[in-house]
Amino acid sequence: MIEEGIEKSHKFLIVGLGLIGGSYAKGLANAGYEVFAIDRDETAIAYGLKEGFIRKGAVNTQEQDTLPLIQEADTIILGLYPQDTVDWVKTYQENFKPHMIVTDVSGVKQFVVAEIQAALRPDVEFLASHPMAGKEVSGVFNSDPAIFLEANFIITPSDSNSMKAINHIKALATILKFRHIAILSPQEHDEMIGFLSQLTHVIAVSLMNSNDNPHLVEYTGDSFRDLTRIANINEVLWSELFLENKNILIQQIDNFMVQVSNIRKTLVEEDIPTLKQLMIQSTERRKKFNK
Amino acid sequence: MIEEGIEKSHKFLIVGLGLIGGSYAKGLANAGYEVFAIDRDETAIAYGLKEGFIRKGAVNTQEQDTLPLIQEADTIILGLYPQDTVDWVKTYQENFKPHMIVTDVSGVKQFVVAEIQAALRPDVEFLASHPMAGKEVSGVFNSDPAIFLEANFIITPSDSNSMKAINHIKALATILKFRHIAILSPQEHDEMIGFLSQLTHVIAVSLMNSNDNPHLVEYTGDSFRDLTRIANINEVLWSELFLENKNILIQQIDNFMVQVSNIRKTLVEEDIPTLKQLMIQSTERRKKFNK
Repeated sequence: MIEEGIEKSHKFLIVGLGLIGGSYAKGLANAGYEVFAIDRDETAIAYGLKEGFIRKGAVNTQEQDTLPLIQEADTIILGLYPQDTVDWVKTYQENFKPHMIVTDVSGVKQFVVAEIQAALRPDVEFLASHPMAGKEVSGVFNSDPAIFLEANFIITPSDSNSMKAINHIKALATILKFRHIAILSPQEHDEMIGFLSQLTHVIAVSLMNSNDNPHLVEYTGDSFRDLTRIANINEVLWSELFLENKNILIQQIDNFMVQVSNIRKTLVEEDIPTLKQLMIQSTERRKKFNK
Repeated sequence: MIEEGIEKSHKFLIVGLGLIGGSYAKGLANAGYEVFAIDRDETAIAYGLKEGFIRKGAVNTQEQDTLPLIQEADTIILGLYPQDTVDWVKTYQENFKPHMIVTDVSGVKQFVVAEIQAALRPDVEFLASHPMAGKEVSGVFNSDPAIFLEANFIITPSDSNSMKAINHIKALATILKFRHIAILSPQEHDEMIGFLSQLTHVIAVSLMNSNDNPHLVEYTGDSFRDLTRIANINEVLWSELFLENKNILIQQIDNFMVQVSNIRKTLVEEDIPTLKQLMIQSTERRKKFNK
C-alpha cells in the first residue's frame, strides 16, 4: 500500500497555516499536490497564495469560503493546538467528504484521540500523528519543509484505526521526506514525549527559576546554555500540553525527583561509592544517545 | 601593575600536564616564557619536550629530577584535582623559592583555599584561580591554548592575598588570552559553580538515570541531547568536586527541587495561570542568557 503512494489528484486541506502547517503545505506543493489552507490570519493565507504553495485559501471566520474547501478535501491535516484540534473536528465534521482521513500534528495523543474518536462520524477516520520537528521561530513565514529531513514522524493508531489509514498517513510522511516513521500507541507516545520533551521543559523552566542572580550570565558556559535553551517557552501551548498529559508528566517528574534525591543523599552521607556508581550509570546510558 | 605584565625571564612550573596544564604550557611557551612541567605520566613529559613547549620536565616519582624544577620556579601552576592540589603543596612547599606565587586550576575554591592557606609557609603566597575552559576529551595530547579565547578566568582571593599576587595572576590570564577575567570571593565562586555547573551535572545525571528505556534513543531530539550531554561525566573528578562543595550544592539542589515541586503542584491542581506565570518568568530570565 505504501509503495503506491498518494495519487496526484488527491486534495489536502491544511487547517492552521503556521510553522508546521506551512511546512506541510510547502512540502506537499513541492511534491505536486493541490493544497488548500484555512487560517485565522489573512496575511498567512495571502502569503500562501502569493507564493503558490496553496491553491485555495480562506480565513476561518468566513464560512462561505471555508466550507467549500472542507467539502472538497480528500485529507485534512490539522495544524492547531490540541484543544483547538478537537473543537475544530467537532464543529466541522458534518462537512467532511465520506471516507475522508483526518490527521493532526499535536504533541499529545491520548487526549486528542479519545476526544475526537468518541465524537467522530462513523464514515470518516481520525488517525493521529506527530511530526517531531520545529524551529525556534514560529509562523508560516518561517515554514520550511527541510525541517522534516532529520525528524521523526510518529503515527499513533488506536484500536479503531484501519491499516488503510495507517498506510495513507505513512505515505504522507514519506512525501514530506521525514527521516524516520514510527508507530506507537497513543499511550506509548505520551510516555515518550512526557519523558523526552515535557520533563526536559519542566527541568529547564525550574532551573531558570531557581536562581535570580542576573550576574550569573557573565560566567555562563555552554552546558548551562544548552540546558536552559528550552526555558524560553510558549506558555500558552506548553501549559495546555502539560495539562493534557498531566498524569504521565507527574509520574515522569516523580521518577526524576527520586534520582535527584538519590544524589542529594549521597552528598549528605558522603557516600562516594554510590555517587560514583550513579555517574557511571548515567555515562553508560548517555553513550547510547551520542549521534 | 597589570600593564607591566610578567618579565620574559620568569619561569613557570606546571604540575599536572593534562588538558588544562598542557594548554597553559603551550600558551606560555607561545608567549616566549620558559616552562617546566612535572607529571606522573612519562609520555606526557616526553611529548612536551619533543614539541618544545616545555623546556625541562620530570616524572613526579623521581625527586632528584622534580626538586630542582620546584626550586627554580618563579610561579607554580597546579593542574591537578583539588585534593591532589592541597596534598602537593603540603608535600613540596619547603622547596619553593621565597616570595613565589602558587596558583591552581581547580573547580572548587573554598576547600582548596582554606586547606592550603592554613598550611602554607608565610613567605610564599597561594592565590586560587579557575580557568573556566575545557574540552570533551582529556590529556595533554588534546591540549590547546585556543580553548581560553572564549573562556572566563576567575581569580578568588581570600583576605590573606596581596594585590601584587592578584595583578600577577591577572597578567598570567592576560598572557593566556582569556576572554574575561573576573574576581570573586571563594564563596561567591563556589555558589556560582554550584548553580551553573554542579547543579546542571546533577540534573543531567538524574535525568539519564530516571528512565532505562533504550528505545527512547530513536525519538530523541536535540533538546534532550543538549540536556544530557554532560551526563557523560568523569566520576572520579566530579564526585570529589561535589563533596568538596557539599553544603552549597545541597542548597542549590533544594532550590531547584522547590521549583520542580511548584510546577508539579500546578499540574495536580490544574492551576494554569500559575503554570503560565512560571513559564513566562523562565522565558524572561533565559532571554538574558542569549548569546
